[in-house]
Amino acid sequence: MRLYMGLVHFPVYNKNGEKIASAITTLDIHDLARLARTYDVRRVFIITPLQDQQELARRVLRHWIEGYGGRYNWHRKEALECVSVVESIEQAVARIQEIEGELPITIATDAGYQEERSISYEEARESIWRNQVAVLIFGTAWGLHEEVIRQSDRVLAPVLGKKGYNHLSVRTAAAIILDRLAGSEEN
Amino acid sequence: MRLYMGLVHFPVYNKNGEKIASAITTLDIHDLARLARTYDVRRVFIITPLQDQQELARRVLRHWIEGYGGRYNWHRKEALECVSVVESIEQAVARIQEIEGELPITIATDAGYQEERSISYEEARESIWRNQVAVLIFGTAWGLHEEVIRQSDRVLAPVLGKKGYNHLSVRTAAAIILDRLAGSEEN
Repeated sequence: MRLYMGLVHFPVYNKNGEKIASAITTLDIHDLARLARTYDVRRVFIITPLQDQQELARRVLRHWIEGYGGRYNWHRKEALECVSVVESIEQAVARIQEIEGELPITIATDAGYQEERSISYEEARESIWRNQVAVLIFGTAWGLHEEVIRQSDRVLAPVLGKKGYNHLSVRTAAAIILDRLAGSEEN
Repeated sequence: MRLYMGLVHFPVYNKNGEKIASAITTLDIHDLARLARTYDVRRVFIITPLQDQQELARRVLRHWIEGYGGRYNWHRKEALECVSVVESIEQAVARIQEIEGELPITIATDAGYQEERSISYEEARESIWRNQVAVLIFGTAWGLHEEVIRQSDRVLAPVLGKKGYNHLSVRTAAAIILDRLAGSEEN
């Protein structure tokens, strides 16, 4: 598996459908890193163009990797070592290309349904297990801006609730999506 | 489906393997409520014997159900309405019995493997879809105390990572477990 994840803080929507840069939730960094470790994701990119937010994310990483956090909780260090902070989705894609020697397919995740270009869990899983380099793109706040959806190669079908409720946190949605796409065959 | 969830703050382990009562993480209440709404879980019990922690949890609920939060974000209100604060697992079980007219089976979740009494995802899923009243018990901090595991009817097999890393947050583990047990057939 040559799978990557990106957590996007810009461009995303706020509650009023405006294009914004959201603030970092440090807990998301931990949760995504731990998920990455569990499901053998190669690297998690925390994506924000805001300098102060990049610095906040890097401070969290330093604390847990080099500082007291790493001595206090080794499992956390192990997880957070796979996290990088970058400015844009383009930069994340460029890094992946450097590492893998080829461009990843970008798979956006969205709580709305993007029929034309949507990819089923089965298709996405198959392509990931065929060793296709891929990056799953998750949006914070009220979700990925339409331009990210448009520029992505594919859009993953949403996690649908029984009663049409689809307002999961990005952490829990990422957990479910990773388990569906990268979970072991035995489970 | 007659499925319930309980998030246990006592008795759980701390990092040193001691029996403690953990503090409420308000974000866990939100995440579990939103998961419950998505997967048609009837009620989420936040379980703690500490009065101040019960009050904290109730304050969060009031804010989002009756206060400003409910007007600000209706989806959050809708989710949090299914949350109750109780003192103990026994009290949660008694409430479920009141609602359903029968005792639920208690299924503990544990990152360690409890071979003798473990139940596979397939078995658990089947029993839930057969409409068996069941409550999934999740532990905060470093996991459920052994006495909870012992007293539960069944223990769910852990979510296993590819490389043996099993240190997910309780939020993300609950998301994965619910999707496996209660996710729609189509997905």
